[in-house]
Amino acid sequence: MSGAVDVKRLSLNQITTENWSLPEAIEGCLRQEIETISIWRHKIADIGLKESSRLIRESALNVSSVCRGGMFPALSQSERNERIEDNKRAVEEAAELGTEVLVLVCGPSPHKDLSESRKWVQEGIEAILPFAQQHGVKLGIEPLHPMFAADRSVITTLAEANDLKGRIGSEQVGVIVDVFHVWWDPYLYEEIDRANGNILGFHVSDWKVPITDLFMGRSLMGEGVIDIPRIRKAVEQNGYHGPIEVEIMNKELWKMPGDENLALIKKAFAQHV
Amino acid sequence: MSGAVDVKRLSLNQITTENWSLPEAIEGCLRQEIETISIWRHKIADIGLKESSRLIRESALNVSSVCRGGMFPALSQSERNERIEDNKRAVEEAAELGTEVLVLVCGPSPHKDLSESRKWVQEGIEAILPFAQQHGVKLGIEPLHPMFAADRSVITTLAEANDLKGRIGSEQVGVIVDVFHVWWDPYLYEEIDRANGNILGFHVSDWKVPITDLFMGRSLMGEGVIDIPRIRKAVEQNGYHGPIEVEIMNKELWKMPGDENLALIKKAFAQHV
Repeated sequence: MSGAVDVKRLSLNQITTENWSLPEAIEGCLRQEIETISIWRHKIADIGLKESSRLIRESALNVSSVCRGGMFPALSQSERNERIEDNKRAVEEAAELGTEVLVLVCGPSPHKDLSESRKWVQEGIEAILPFAQQHGVKLGIEPLHPMFAADRSVITTLAEANDLKGRIGSEQVGVIVDVFHVWWDPYLYEEIDRANGNILGFHVSDWKVPITDLFMGRSLMGEGVIDIPRIRKAVEQNGYHGPIEVEIMNKELWKMPGDENLALIKKAFAQHV
Repeated sequence: MSGAVDVKRLSLNQITTENWSLPEAIEGCLRQEIETISIWRHKIADIGLKESSRLIRESALNVSSVCRGGMFPALSQSERNERIEDNKRAVEEAAELGTEVLVLVCGPSPHKDLSESRKWVQEGIEAILPFAQQHGVKLGIEPLHPMFAADRSVITTLAEANDLKGRIGSEQVGVIVDVFHVWWDPYLYEEIDRANGNILGFHVSDWKVPITDLFMGRSLMGEGVIDIPRIRKAVEQNGYHGPIEVEIMNKELWKMPGDENLALIKKAFAQHV
């Protein structure tokens, strides 16, 4: 046993082929023999939920997750309620597309009091929890790299995601481990152990030095400094053996013909995950 | 008591006026009635240690720290020994310039095994510790923002800096709290409490959204999302009442005539620190 990754676990996170519509991404996966896809909500909106669902069923692709719910913090209760309603729509979309996982990017803070925003995140998740349970959809809290704390997520470490999951105390809630967001963390492996049984997703890309763009700076696996196989094995030892999403926001990949992009990520996946 | 900051605590971290030589920065501080300065080693090298020391004594400015020692991890023992020797020179420079604090930016990892690099950091600090004690210089471990983990410091959180200080177990070692590096941390205030009595420096700037450059992206206090007064008060409650360094790498500030730059940072300091 070499411990090599099974390439069948590759899931195309749709942001990696941002220039493709959902129908194009589905066709691309079928051509490239990728069996699983993670679907973004703006791509569902482009063609409608019913058509998205029909295409997915017809393709027989698995759906590893819907990206993304979250974005809970807002200054007024009415705005926070709107966010909660929007998250319920995301839960419905996940259920309709046949995935068990809605990824939560929890949202930035509208003011300087991060601890209040973190409470709003917890309140938001608790508010959608019964609805998610009814729909058979689990909620995956994804800690984002701390460099996104100001504009994307006040949940910044796996420790914090584990704590949040613990406070909510529901089996319906788990965590997502994305190597790009967590690789630097000195307490990463303890926190992966602590997430045992609660890991709902595993995302890969790489951190190439120097990073020139915070959001678009991700690279193909193998081009950067992240010890991806070590993190994968830790996640597996803690019970996660599901799809591994390749999620790379990268302008060079986006410019490339989609099939070339998929061929590249398949190769990098086999060699470096 | 409004809890406002005493402007006399402002220390000019010399990188904020990167286009000034040390003599120019000293003269600028005197003109702008800034009583304290933090000196970078490349500026000392430009005119020599003796001349630097003479100018500082003549000016009667206080020196809050020398920036920076550290950069301990390297693949071979001989390279690590060279780094240790270089850190001893930094200790000598700090002593000669009359400051008690050498700031440590601990260094990136030369390979993917961050935990090994973190051991090298600890070994490096332990190796220079007796020398630092003899010279009356304290070693301030500065955790850097996790976005610098790949190219500047494997020490990324105040928790990790506190743990490292604890493992070394010497009164000669403490931590530096820089708001730009730590503001996002959900455990920040617990960790500032845990650093009680061991805080050797407090640095300010701001995180303006969006950050367009990792290294050069810092802003004037008040322009960003960091709750600087709350962090300052937490640091004070835990025993730190020393100089507050303004450390802003920012091209707009660098382009500006130095005296205008200093006038701006004084104003922002009084209003937003």
